[in-house]
Amino acid sequence: MKAAVLHRYDESLSGTEFVRYEDVPDPRIEKPTDVIVRIGGAGVCRTDLHIVEGIWRSKVDVQLPYIMGHENAGWVEEVGKAVESVKVGDAVICHPLVTSGHCLACRRGDDMHATDSRFPGINANGGYAQYLATGERSLIKLPASLLPKAVAPYTDAGLTAYRAAKKASRHLLPGEYVVCIGAGGLGHIGIQVLGALCAAEIIVVDRSDVGLGLAKECGAHHVVKADGGELESVLALTGGHGAEAVIDFVGEGSAVAQGIAMTRNGGYYYIVGYGGKIDLPTIDMITSEKTIVGNLVGTYPELVELMALADRGLVNLTTREYRLSEANQALQDLHHGKIRGRAVLVP
Amino acid sequence: MKAAVLHRYDESLSGTEFVRYEDVPDPRIEKPTDVIVRIGGAGVCRTDLHIVEGIWRSKVDVQLPYIMGHENAGWVEEVGKAVESVKVGDAVICHPLVTSGHCLACRRGDDMHATDSRFPGINANGGYAQYLATGERSLIKLPASLLPKAVAPYTDAGLTAYRAAKKASRHLLPGEYVVCIGAGGLGHIGIQVLGALCAAEIIVVDRSDVGLGLAKECGAHHVVKADGGELESVLALTGGHGAEAVIDFVGEGSAVAQGIAMTRNGGYYYIVGYGGKIDLPTIDMITSEKTIVGNLVGTYPELVELMALADRGLVNLTTREYRLSEANQALQDLHHGKIRGRAVLVP
Amino acid sequence: MKAAVLHRYDESLSGTEFVRYEDVPDPRIEKPTDVIVRIGGAGVCRTDLHIVEGIWRSKVDVQLPYIMGHENAGWVEEVGKAVESVKVGDAVICHPLVTSGHCLACRRGDDMHATDSRFPGINANGGYAQYLATGERSLIKLPASLLPKAVAPYTDAGLTAYRAAKKASRHLLPGEYVVCIGAGGLGHIGIQVLGALCAAEIIVVDRSDVGLGLAKECGAHHVVKADGGELESVLALTGGHGAEAVIDFVGEGSAVAQGIAMTRNGGYYYIVGYGGKIDLPTIDMITSEKTIVGNLVGTYPELVELMALADRGLVNLTTREYRLSEANQALQDLHHGKIRGRAVLVP
Amino acid sequence: MKAAVLHRYDESLSGTEFVRYEDVPDPRIEKPTDVIVRIGGAGVCRTDLHIVEGIWRSKVDVQLPYIMGHENAGWVEEVGKAVESVKVGDAVICHPLVTSGHCLACRRGDDMHATDSRFPGINANGGYAQYLATGERSLIKLPASLLPKAVAPYTDAGLTAYRAAKKASRHLLPGEYVVCIGAGGLGHIGIQVLGALCAAEIIVVDRSDVGLGLAKECGAHHVVKADGGELESVLALTGGHGAEAVIDFVGEGSAVAQGIAMTRNGGYYYIVGYGGKIDLPTIDMITSEKTIVGNLVGTYPELVELMALADRGLVNLTTREYRLSEANQALQDLHHGKIRGRAVLVP
Repeated sequence: MKAAVLHRYDESLSGTEFVRYEDVPDPRIEKPTDVIVRIGGAGVCRTDLHIVEGIWRSKVDVQLPYIMGHENAGWVEEVGKAVESVKVGDAVICHPLVTSGHCLACRRGDDMHATDSRFPGINANGGYAQYLATGERSLIKLPASLLPKAVAPYTDAGLTAYRAAKKASRHLLPGEYVVCIGAGGLGHIGIQVLGALCAAEIIVVDRSDVGLGLAKECGAHHVVKADGGELESVLALTGGHGAEAVIDFVGEGSAVAQGIAMTRNGGYYYIVGYGGKIDLPTIDMITSEKTIVGNLVGTYPELVELMALADRGLVNLTTREYRLSEANQALQDLHHGKIRGRAVLVP
Repeated sequence: MKAAVLHRYDESLSGTEFVRYEDVPDPRIEKPTDVIVRIGGAGVCRTDLHIVEGIWRSKVDVQLPYIMGHENAGWVEEVGKAVESVKVGDAVICHPLVTSGHCLACRRGDDMHATDSRFPGINANGGYAQYLATGERSLIKLPASLLPKAVAPYTDAGLTAYRAAKKASRHLLPGEYVVCIGAGGLGHIGIQVLGALCAAEIIVVDRSDVGLGLAKECGAHHVVKADGGELESVLALTGGHGAEAVIDFVGEGSAVAQGIAMTRNGGYYYIVGYGGKIDLPTIDMITSEKTIVGNLVGTYPELVELMALADRGLVNLTTREYRLSEANQALQDLHHGKIRGRAVLVP
Repeated sequence: MKAAVLHRYDESLSGTEFVRYEDVPDPRIEKPTDVIVRIGGAGVCRTDLHIVEGIWRSKVDVQLPYIMGHENAGWVEEVGKAVESVKVGDAVICHPLVTSGHCLACRRGDDMHATDSRFPGINANGGYAQYLATGERSLIKLPASLLPKAVAPYTDAGLTAYRAAKKASRHLLPGEYVVCIGAGGLGHIGIQVLGALCAAEIIVVDRSDVGLGLAKECGAHHVVKADGGELESVLALTGGHGAEAVIDFVGEGSAVAQGIAMTRNGGYYYIVGYGGKIDLPTIDMITSEKTIVGNLVGTYPELVELMALADRGLVNLTTREYRLSEANQALQDLHHGKIRGRAVLVP
Repeated sequence: MKAAVLHRYDESLSGTEFVRYEDVPDPRIEKPTDVIVRIGGAGVCRTDLHIVEGIWRSKVDVQLPYIMGHENAGWVEEVGKAVESVKVGDAVICHPLVTSGHCLACRRGDDMHATDSRFPGINANGGYAQYLATGERSLIKLPASLLPKAVAPYTDAGLTAYRAAKKASRHLLPGEYVVCIGAGGLGHIGIQVLGALCAAEIIVVDRSDVGLGLAKECGAHHVVKADGGELESVLALTGGHGAEAVIDFVGEGSAVAQGIAMTRNGGYYYIVGYGGKIDLPTIDMITSEKTIVGNLVGTYPELVELMALADRGLVNLTTREYRLSEANQALQDLHHGKIRGRAVLVP
């Protein structure tokens, strides 16, 4: 099959060819629960740029060359002998983690914390290709309303935003406030999910007017330009107290300290973006009784829930299509901030 | 009345007289909901030493001279005209915060986050004295089984440990683990509360053999000496995963980083002690999906719950009695680590 | 003052004068926390007809003559000496229960289960009058956007619907279903609250086309005529499984059995309306693992939350105004089904 | 293999031979996830008597002759080709439900509500035999401390009691009360679980002094003879309010109405036993705001949790061993109330 393969790291992202479009062997069914999916679309994620940079090298065990692409959807091409819940030809979206389902975390529905798993595109071959090897437990059948290439980015960007917003919605009450820091690929989904799941007033903080415009389209009730005065603006909007929940889709630079400061005493700071640091005296955690919550993608049932929102039009995703052979162009465009919404590679 | 009054800060704690035992005016009823309590006992807390050092100077608005003592119990001496729920002579324990009860936090039962409150002993005159001015809403009547001087330290040390342990017990399941870092004044209460409220296996980490001995008496299932190898020991006890909950009663030095590292992915790190820093890359919060939870004393209903545990003998507190006139001796003994359990000043 | 006073029961509701419009003594401040409210509007509730019928005689301790009216809003007229949180002239809505705030239920925010309380209009003089005696803890200040006479019915009808819908929203996930039985005074609020607080699909069952029309205006996604085939219709809409939550605003006749049958295994049946019976073999509760949830008005903080929704226009209430002297007309119109929305008496 | 086979119903339980001990074909692996377990012990349950009586005939789809026995443990004898998590020779306890794991309920950890499942011993051949056909997802490996024949009854009797007690423990606070109605096979497990998972005071109501004696051994704090005055006794013990939770292991006769009456306003009545009826005016559910909770066995992770309690000696089960060929004797002894604890058939 054809694939866009990563052969070497490029720490400075200064090259022009991050991946090589070439022929590679087709993936094969190895276990009775394996499924081969013909890719309909593979999302291009900032994490892919971080992989090219080598940032993930020490975090995961993977050897080059390999195929990136962890946001995948398509059609079932071939199934192992034990597969019962999908059949050849089904349109499916792929939960990013492949698990056996035997560990206690999986049995409790918390599959993101499976003790045994693989993450195609991160630590195994992914979906920048014509075919992907995944497992039966990762597949959700799509309703006719949703095309694979239109929904692929929900599997990671969308799901991560959904999970964090859902956690916040569990405690947000009418009359309370939620701040979203960042109205980009994840943030604009998070805003829509919050609007669907709770009645808190949504304040969005972003550096760019484009981001703030998108935030308003997505349902933000208040927007705040991140120009240095954002903390004061959020405090002013919230009666001086801060917000009961802050969801930080940026997670680097000044966003972290600002996000924690924007959180009301007794409130929750959800961290989704990464790259920066939490640096905080413990006494401040005591006197404020705040909670800092890490967020890692989302579970399979949560992806089902997100698909239900998408199917009903309660969340929408803007995508820009590239051919698989144009993978480098898509990565460059992402690197240079030229993509509104999410790039998707179509084989 | 007699009181032990703080007249000046002593940053190095090098003096011999931190407070002065002297005559001061009696507190008076000013509002219809005010109550004067005759002190039966006032706990001596490490926070009092921190106050003497001046550490709290920038955090609270209080002028010297004033009277420390935020862990108080005694008998109702006089009541304001609107007071209905207690009468003169009732034995009572004093919730540390005095609130009006009108704000939404109070109405939701979350009185620690009242928008309007005072904290006698911290930002108003406290209980190192014969009498204390407090409010009706702070008082819990004691059952005959519990003497004021025996329970006074429950109001802060006990309540803080109770709240953190209760939060953890809400999610701890049989087969899971909880680590307590520190088996001192708060920790030894926390261990007992965990044993009463859940069936997780309790691992206690402490620097001293005395602490570990006390931990075992309090019901710890495993004890680990904090000698540098504590992280490895905890991982070994928990199948390499870490504990589903870690309660850090130390909160300074290496405890914080170790405590977070001892927390299983998807688990909760409860921070109770203070003095140190949280210093953590955001990517580590993402990949581990851990939650860091601040803890601030506890609510009035939680103090009622703790008294129910004490009344039934499910938690026990070791106290050492000093006369009020010996306040400096008590503070010095605490400063020099000579107190097992908790010092209590008795007027 | 003028009031519409109930002097005798009328079991058959066949008379023309249920209450007598007459002069009665003004209510007076008796306790330091008492507040006198000048009534801006008092909602007329089906429970008032049930009181006239004598249905509540055995449930509450009240002597005739007395003044009905438990849905009240207006302006603070006079305050007791301990009152701090409202001042004369404030526009307020009155939580229906008057509590002292001292019991543990109140301290936990669960004031509907106060061990000591009175319920003006039910077991004490209510708001079919120019003035009402209530307590400081019952009052919520209104934003300028909300007029007392426009919001009075929120205090009982609205709050009851809110609390049940909020309970359901805590567990309803995208892709799930909620059924509302009855789209009348309570139901039409419940539908709007569900739309604001969760993303479940809302199915409304009602006997009348007018009710179903109102349901659609309020945001119902599916409407089902209660003509005998409603159970089958709901099962068809929910893939044969029933809904994860059913809120029964009727609570009598066939609604109860149907409502339980419409509930999915493992789901929740919320009972709000009354008059009928639950009659169910225990084995059916076991094999289905359903939960049946009683609902009693709502807490003070929940009324604050509902006012936040109303202030933002997320819930709306249709009212029809009558002068206080026309109380009998309002009651007759309600009795004969001539009121769309909610009648409000204005002194 | 040998099995004790049910050939015909006996509505009056008047016969002497309920089942026939005979040779039947061995079960075989049919699907890749099938597992054959060599039975170490099969619990004899009152439900088995109800099956013989024909009570379940209309509830489940099963043809005679078939093999009863839904409480099974033993050793893995043979595994299908896709089985990864157990191997031949492993000592295992069998969760009673066999599921594929593909439906959303299973993916959320709520496997008792699987849309596709079978229940060996109820609607498929069970464990009154030498071998049982089950599925990989039903098996939990036993620690060396637990013998199959000693733990078999945990799979249904134990798990059902555990799940109900666990639900109650999630909201029971120190100072609150829980009533267990019935201290028999399920009740005596429930009492121990409550003692392990919460600090509420446990009141046990039973008709027999033997039951009350067992209750005390299991940790009951108060015992009440069910002699007609049990409601008054429970109210007296609970300050006139009733208990925050009532777990009804009887579910028939007067227990249901009494159990609901013993529940405090705002509290929870958990129904576990069956045979009787709930018969209640809806107004009583409204004014009391009680919740009635059905309970159906428990999930796979809950059986893992219960095994953790058993492994640590926090719950204990009394069993009486019979040979498989003595199945009729065991059933007769159960029918005539001659068994203390739980009968187990050993092939």
